[in-house]
Amino acid sequence: MARPEMIASGPGSRALVVDIVRSSGPISRVELTQATGLTQPSISNIVRHLLETGVLRESGRVASTGGKPRTLLEINPTALYAVGIQLGFEAMTFVAAGAGGGTVARQLVDGAAVAEPQDVVERLAAQFASFIDIAGISVDTIAGVGVVVPGPLSPAGGTMFRSPTLRRWEGFPLLERLAALLPVPVLLDNDAAAAAVGEFWTRRIARTETFATVYMGTGIGAGVVLDGALLRGSSSNAAELGHMTIDADGVACSCGNVGCVERYAAPAAVLSDAGTAPRRFAGLGLEFTEHTTGSDFDRLARAAVNGHEAARGLLEHSADRLAAAVVSFNNVFDLDSIVLAGPSFAIAGSMYARAARARIEQTSFARQAHGTTIEIAANPRDSAAIGAAALVLQSSVAPGHGPALHP
Amino acid sequence: MARPEMIASGPGSRALVVDIVRSSGPISRVELTQATGLTQPSISNIVRHLLETGVLRESGRVASTGGKPRTLLEINPTALYAVGIQLGFEAMTFVAAGAGGGTVARQLVDGAAVAEPQDVVERLAAQFASFIDIAGISVDTIAGVGVVVPGPLSPAGGTMFRSPTLRRWEGFPLLERLAALLPVPVLLDNDAAAAAVGEFWTRRIARTETFATVYMGTGIGAGVVLDGALLRGSSSNAAELGHMTIDADGVACSCGNVGCVERYAAPAAVLSDAGTAPRRFAGLGLEFTEHTTGSDFDRLARAAVNGHEAARGLLEHSADRLAAAVVSFNNVFDLDSIVLAGPSFAIAGSMYARAARARIEQTSFARQAHGTTIEIAANPRDSAAIGAAALVLQSSVAPGHGPALHP
Repeated sequence: MARPEMIASGPGSRALVVDIVRSSGPISRVELTQATGLTQPSISNIVRHLLETGVLRESGRVASTGGKPRTLLEINPTALYAVGIQLGFEAMTFVAAGAGGGTVARQLVDGAAVAEPQDVVERLAAQFASFIDIAGISVDTIAGVGVVVPGPLSPAGGTMFRSPTLRRWEGFPLLERLAALLPVPVLLDNDAAAAAVGEFWTRRIARTETFATVYMGTGIGAGVVLDGALLRGSSSNAAELGHMTIDADGVACSCGNVGCVERYAAPAAVLSDAGTAPRRFAGLGLEFTEHTTGSDFDRLARAAVNGHEAARGLLEHSADRLAAAVVSFNNVFDLDSIVLAGPSFAIAGSMYARAARARIEQTSFARQAHGTTIEIAANPRDSAAIGAAALVLQSSVAPGHGPALHP
Repeated sequence: MARPEMIASGPGSRALVVDIVRSSGPISRVELTQATGLTQPSISNIVRHLLETGVLRESGRVASTGGKPRTLLEINPTALYAVGIQLGFEAMTFVAAGAGGGTVARQLVDGAAVAEPQDVVERLAAQFASFIDIAGISVDTIAGVGVVVPGPLSPAGGTMFRSPTLRRWEGFPLLERLAALLPVPVLLDNDAAAAAVGEFWTRRIARTETFATVYMGTGIGAGVVLDGALLRGSSSNAAELGHMTIDADGVACSCGNVGCVERYAAPAAVLSDAGTAPRRFAGLGLEFTEHTTGSDFDRLARAAVNGHEAARGLLEHSADRLAAAVVSFNNVFDLDSIVLAGPSFAIAGSMYARAARARIEQTSFARQAHGTTIEIAANPRDSAAIGAAALVLQSSVAPGHGPALHP
């Protein structure tokens, strides 16, 4: 599957302008001309359109050397909203974000669990109505809803295939059903990929940076942002860090490969290790069922950061295995910065950050050429939902830059 | 280190036009307008400039529905040449390519071995003069010289650091000295990265394809082409496939990491394995010195394809280890196609292709979404030199798209 041909004019240039305003903060038209390489008339046209549609607003003037004062432009945070929904096994997270990327509302409800997909989608649509009602956001100002899921997506982008936790969703026409039930346009994407766009958008990362998020929820994924756009690959299934082999003679993975880092570092692997010596974790209230993987892992992580020796040993082993894969990942992308995002970094994220930072500093291929910063998301649990909203903002400002909004 | 800001007009659009003509073959201005999304006046301007500078030429007319016949445009293969030079330990390869990417001259001379870098650069410059003289190419028609080397490059791009085979070149101001001695502009790049651009250019791969080469010379590298441009990362050290870990508890690598696939699959590793049972390889004339790694590996590879059981076992093990890393690499890039390039695939490349193809078909993450084709370069030994020439062509047609020509 090939990507559509890049459009060198129109939406691409508009996205470039929005992106520079987003990352630079208040900026004049003259500076935009310099930063983009576009002509002055092009900048004037694009800015006029963005002011009319409310994406940008004028924010004041600065004195100019020997001319009239320059008007500054900035993102208009309140004219346009996007809603992001992360659909997971244990929870559904709703967030609403303004065009600047800031979260203005948040809600957590029960996840899909083992319910019928159609029932879950109907519940999601009802919840959406109550969510924007409580948040006081008019549906007319919502550019769209981004829904993100853990599973790999089919090339057409409308269904999941081979989802380890949401098995009965395989082949369910998710995008089509969402579009039929929601009153605004909707897009569907992968949670780890979305998180990368969310961090890129809300952290004001410059588009010239080579940036990635490493995402850990139930599984392990990643997203890479190059020149301001998400790396999608041939079928929107790029950046599957969790399925990088760290032991070519290792254990089989549900994906069909062997020795995938997910099998050694993800919550299920950590809990499986804990299950081999349950007495050492007796006081922690672990339930060891498939449905409690997330909360069991949180309990272990909390014990680890509180000094429980055995729990700490398990988490450090997981962090060490993940760090090995992160170095390989960095060796193929040559990154400026990495953010750790996703619910499984919410409690013990700093153990993972420290392990990855040390490995990269000591062993990364290009360490003599440049450093790679490693940080933790401001709110790891919400990263994917915020990213889903950011994808909507990107898509409504610059159609064709990512998955399309439907209808 | 960040990349320079992408320019949304000018060279970018010109590169897009050249690239579509290159990959599509003869094409009309109207079709170019449709394929690029640029306006008709923009296409007219760009095409006029490219005709004037000789990059494109008119190649005939086709009847049009209800209008005057359309003139077709194609790459002009003889107006402009580029020279590519691969500087290796055992050999220096010179190629000259026309703007269409076809090789018009080729020469192989002694490599850098352990000579003083300055002496080697002077010999290279003298050889360049004799090479274009014998090939009958006027220096006025040469857009530039691309020189490619195996080592990682410093961020400024002018020197190598930590080159396993060319140790005394570390920190030598290679680009500066080349620019001082050669009568045409010069650029410097990594051999594996260059090979990717060479294959992309000469195979007429569409820019919408997610494409990579896996390169094996003394070491193992790769190059990834996204939207027609090489993935460079933060410091031009992206795509280091050879330094992906396939055993997180494995052997130390000279790069500072552990378990890198290069330590299990590259020629030195294969020869090291052979060295543990030298009697099994007695008839093959292996010399087992650092300087003969390339020719010793060729002898083993030849024996393997000719049915020598022990040699075949070694090569198959190497191919199997490399295939494990190629799957991880594919899982993070989600590739449409892969080409195996570089001298170490020259003899037994099909063993490597078969192993990688089988692994990808059986275990790649997105195998249910799409296939990934794996082919061998038409001339694996020349891939990097041809790529060096292609980089010059790309750079002279679209400055800013890759490393700059100096001066």
